[in-house]
Amino acid sequence: MRITAITATPIAFADPPLLNFAGLHQPYALRTIVEVETDEGIPGFGEVAGGEQMQKAFRLAIPDLIGMDAFNRQAIRQLIIGGEGSDDTHQIMPGVADQRRRELVYSGIEVALLDIAGQALGLPVHALLGGKARDTVDFSAYLFYKHEGGGGSDDDIRDDIYGPALDPDGIVRQARALIDEYGFRSVKLKGGAFPPEQEMDTMRALHGAFGDGVPLRIDPNGAWTVETSVKVGVELDGILEYLEDPAPGMDSMSAVRGDLITRGVMTPLATNMIVTRFERIAEAYEKDACQIILSDHHIWGGLQATHELGRLCEAFSFGLSMHSNSHLGISLMAMVHVAAATPALTYACDTHYPWQRAEDEIIQGGRIAFEDGAVRAPDAPGLGIEIDRDNLARLHERCRACGIAERDDAAYMRNRVDPTFSPDPARW
Amino acid sequence: MRITAITATPIAFADPPLLNFAGLHQPYALRTIVEVETDEGIPGFGEVAGGEQMQKAFRLAIPDLIGMDAFNRQAIRQLIIGGEGSDDTHQIMPGVADQRRRELVYSGIEVALLDIAGQALGLPVHALLGGKARDTVDFSAYLFYKHEGGGGSDDDIRDDIYGPALDPDGIVRQARALIDEYGFRSVKLKGGAFPPEQEMDTMRALHGAFGDGVPLRIDPNGAWTVETSVKVGVELDGILEYLEDPAPGMDSMSAVRGDLITRGVMTPLATNMIVTRFERIAEAYEKDACQIILSDHHIWGGLQATHELGRLCEAFSFGLSMHSNSHLGISLMAMVHVAAATPALTYACDTHYPWQRAEDEIIQGGRIAFEDGAVRAPDAPGLGIEIDRDNLARLHERCRACGIAERDDAAYMRNRVDPTFSPDPARW
Repeated sequence: MRITAITATPIAFADPPLLNFAGLHQPYALRTIVEVETDEGIPGFGEVAGGEQMQKAFRLAIPDLIGMDAFNRQAIRQLIIGGEGSDDTHQIMPGVADQRRRELVYSGIEVALLDIAGQALGLPVHALLGGKARDTVDFSAYLFYKHEGGGGSDDDIRDDIYGPALDPDGIVRQARALIDEYGFRSVKLKGGAFPPEQEMDTMRALHGAFGDGVPLRIDPNGAWTVETSVKVGVELDGILEYLEDPAPGMDSMSAVRGDLITRGVMTPLATNMIVTRFERIAEAYEKDACQIILSDHHIWGGLQATHELGRLCEAFSFGLSMHSNSHLGISLMAMVHVAAATPALTYACDTHYPWQRAEDEIIQGGRIAFEDGAVRAPDAPGLGIEIDRDNLARLHERCRACGIAERDDAAYMRNRVDPTFSPDPARW
Repeated sequence: MRITAITATPIAFADPPLLNFAGLHQPYALRTIVEVETDEGIPGFGEVAGGEQMQKAFRLAIPDLIGMDAFNRQAIRQLIIGGEGSDDTHQIMPGVADQRRRELVYSGIEVALLDIAGQALGLPVHALLGGKARDTVDFSAYLFYKHEGGGGSDDDIRDDIYGPALDPDGIVRQARALIDEYGFRSVKLKGGAFPPEQEMDTMRALHGAFGDGVPLRIDPNGAWTVETSVKVGVELDGILEYLEDPAPGMDSMSAVRGDLITRGVMTPLATNMIVTRFERIAEAYEKDACQIILSDHHIWGGLQATHELGRLCEAFSFGLSMHSNSHLGISLMAMVHVAAATPALTYACDTHYPWQRAEDEIIQGGRIAFEDGAVRAPDAPGLGIEIDRDNLARLHERCRACGIAERDDAAYMRNRVDPTFSPDPARW
């Protein structure tokens, strides 16, 4: 089966004003919807990060992929990313020197190729990855400090069902709403938005509201110093399932871990910042800089690579969880397939999915259902979804109209909230 | 597609009197040929180690696998081996406490399942593993000290085309014969059979005969002390591609490496002894006890696990090569598929294949062809082979008649050559 066409469609969907370390979510989140076509007629879909640089990368990559064997993902990977010992790195994307962007391009295409392969073969993607280790995939309630409003521009803003959440009470209210609607059984707070004392108060409020039965996590994206990270670790000892990226960089994380152990605090450190590539794992292991790795098939170079990361985590006794960025249902389904097929993935996964709106879903049948905080891995062929092309076209049109070229949370924060804002690592 | 039957047929094929650390190869090598049948009618084949204990393990495992989804290898693996966090280890094989034997059982079945999946889907096994990273797979000439004779019993002994090889000249002659016939471009000597000085003379003779263009390896299977290993490493510096398992155990290997580096010898250490499971890699990495891991899909739990080992080796900067035991064409084809699909596997693989006889091959069309020391990865569906059922029946009958219940090189050595023989680690 040969690849006959690849389309990378930029889209934008409404995104609420969520706060994080880097600033404030813009009114629209950008994604790229990848469609691969083959000479056997079945289209496959993938979804990755958006923005003009991604568009440029796809434009450079696509021509050389036309005509390639759709079943030989390895050859396509080598062409896009470069393989072990190969000299062809960057070859087909001479203007894209950034390894991360090449992994993203490959991931979008790999998911589409697995979707095609599954449909052609009558197998769900999890079977192509080796088979289900579980039938349902748990997700956590991903809490954000947020301002009022549901995102979008003046003419397509919608009801903000969650309201603002700028203090512990607001976050607890948000958690209740998400748990009521989705059944989540664990909770993660995106921190790094307010001084650590305030965020610790929020964690204590969540613990008070939900008790020990609901595992809690906080992720300030490296906004804290080593000292602050240790202080938070000590003060929240016993109520955190894990502490994600408290301090920036490998050595800071290692220092946090060392200090916490000295103080008898065994809360594991998780990361989606210091280890986002296979090549970074060895150093993290040597320095004991993290004990849990957050996978993300978009960033780690696809579903098969993510599945392989699971094996590596087992071998080196890392825990495995899953990271998320703002996304729609294609990404969610890809996450579900790989999580179902990866035994090591024992932590509930992150997802931004609740923050997106039903009317912005681009898969037929609308939003994917959650039960008890989990999504059932579909046994239908491929990803198990079909695309709503009208909605895809609408979101593409909106991308052209919305005026956002690249995600820039810091600029939007300066524009809307604090003209002096700067997303400095370890700022507290 | 459901599994309807699994047959594990014990076979025996003639094996020449090859010497190694453990003793002397018996006149017949034992293997198990696994055939999996499904309700869609396509049979698939695997090949693993033989002997009565393997028969017992398969007898215990098979009943619970009937009716399972042939595409859900993950579920079958979890049932046989036990998965991350599962309590069901040993569950279906209560008499088989040995993890290694369970991995072997799963591997034999996994290869057959991939063979079936490939045939059902019209895809070669390497495509199921992610696609070819290379079209041909290099093997090395696997040299053995040997006595005269081609193996087998009185009534089916054949011409011994290689003759005896008990000194440097004999080994060089053997190397030339193998290279002439197969085109091998690298050479490995199974050492540990004679005192190290003699084996070093042999390596020097090989280097003298073939020069720097033919990489050389020696593998005494841990027969040497740390001191001897270091001495060999120093004396053969510059003529070895790698030094495989010179000393027994993780700490001895680590000590050898440390001493060699102190002496400025950077020859990497390879192993198929101290690291034969994912769980052992971390310690080897920490102790720098080996720099090259020899994969073996039979031992590492199948082709997918071996492919994943490749990713792990890339991440932790281990080199990757491939180990072999006496085998026939099903195993060779499985090795070729996984090697073709694993970019990290940059060293020529081991194979005992030349030591087996054409009349003992159980795949249709006879022995698999080598060109320039390499085997072409077939693009036919599945493993790309069909079974010669008459020859399979003949080798099964011979297994019943040959009187060998388990491989025991030491007993055969005592019986035939040296009544006092004992395969002691670090004996030199």
